[in-house]
Amino acid sequence: MGAPDEAGSRPFRLGVLISGSGSNLQSIIDRLHKGAAAADAGAGDDARAIEVSLVISDNVSAYGLKRAQNNGIPTAVFPMDDYADRVQHDLAMADELEKHGVDLVVLAGYMLIVTPAFLERFPQAVINLHPSLLPAFPGGTPIEDTMDYGARVTGVTVHFVDAGTDTGPIILQEAVEIKYNDTVESLRERIHAVEHRLLPRAIELISEGRVSFDEANPRFVIIS
Amino acid sequence: MGAPDEAGSRPFRLGVLISGSGSNLQSIIDRLHKGAAAADAGAGDDARAIEVSLVISDNVSAYGLKRAQNNGIPTAVFPMDDYADRVQHDLAMADELEKHGVDLVVLAGYMLIVTPAFLERFPQAVINLHPSLLPAFPGGTPIEDTMDYGARVTGVTVHFVDAGTDTGPIILQEAVEIKYNDTVESLRERIHAVEHRLLPRAIELISEGRVSFDEANPRFVIIS
Repeated sequence: MGAPDEAGSRPFRLGVLISGSGSNLQSIIDRLHKGAAAADAGAGDDARAIEVSLVISDNVSAYGLKRAQNNGIPTAVFPMDDYADRVQHDLAMADELEKHGVDLVVLAGYMLIVTPAFLERFPQAVINLHPSLLPAFPGGTPIEDTMDYGARVTGVTVHFVDAGTDTGPIILQEAVEIKYNDTVESLRERIHAVEHRLLPRAIELISEGRVSFDEANPRFVIIS
Repeated sequence: MGAPDEAGSRPFRLGVLISGSGSNLQSIIDRLHKGAAAADAGAGDDARAIEVSLVISDNVSAYGLKRAQNNGIPTAVFPMDDYADRVQHDLAMADELEKHGVDLVVLAGYMLIVTPAFLERFPQAVINLHPSLLPAFPGGTPIEDTMDYGARVTGVTVHFVDAGTDTGPIILQEAVEIKYNDTVESLRERIHAVEHRLLPRAIELISEGRVSFDEANPRFVIIS
């Protein structure tokens, strides 16, 4: 394992967008960044080196920025207030991501909605993590909404981002059972544990070229 | 197991409403009807005899009626066309159910929406089975809708019926993973297998008095 890169191969480069603590960024760093995957028993022969090339936050005090710096990963901050509108904000962010040669943009606890202008710059290459089994409980407070509804099963979704809110084609989902004595906090903890596994897994599959769209139904993501 | 009933105890009586083949009615008969549960290793000391007291169909040619008759269970047919409106239809049906002393009304593949006038006659005592993890994919073609959406996890919900469509408080849910080579038919088959387990389980819990509502959140069903 850990064979040297063939001539001409380059790492699969991630741009990770965050707004807060960056615990999902940490799971990407721990499991995938610069060969962490090679040490993983699950990594196959087709595993390609993955690198977090840039971490972007809209919030200058996001702890995730520290996590990136601790691992020698470049960071950039794009506060919304510095821009005339969301499109200008997103285009500046897209420029920075392109400058770093990013192959995939990962929204990992990024609290702003990205604009269609941003998505056009990274076609079928922006993914998001959502703590529910979409299409159930979209929006900003899914775990609270799930508990209020009295659901008994929820989960985690990793999906491609499209122009809607939490409506894009689904890559992976995993169920999480709700226990009768669960609180929002205890449920959130179990959901986080699944997120920390599912998001790196989706990134790995995409980096290996194993994720494509069904021509007959472009909502349907095929994993080979 | 199978201790004789104490004096004064009477069976917990079900009225089952169907429209078609009645495969879920069959699972209720096989697992619960007249002591089938007592033979089940899972039945506890608090198990109470359960009896399917009446099977109702809106459709005279529903095969489920035959299944009932094969087991000596009374049947009744209430075609919608025989009544001036849905309320008259449902009130006639409610009268028949009451005549049979029904404790719980189970919608098991019943394709009509029951009216609030019907629900008022059986407060918190009408349950429905739905082949998705509600609130995802409500309505009449949930399995098709789930596949069209490209979801990767779906499941089965048993819930109390309220005035909305598939919106009532959830009693039990169980996840079903969608495989990459699934068709609507192959998925339906695995969902049916879960339904045949989950609906009898919910009925059993209700018959044992183990299902109640959280006073702080009436949408939240407590199972003790």
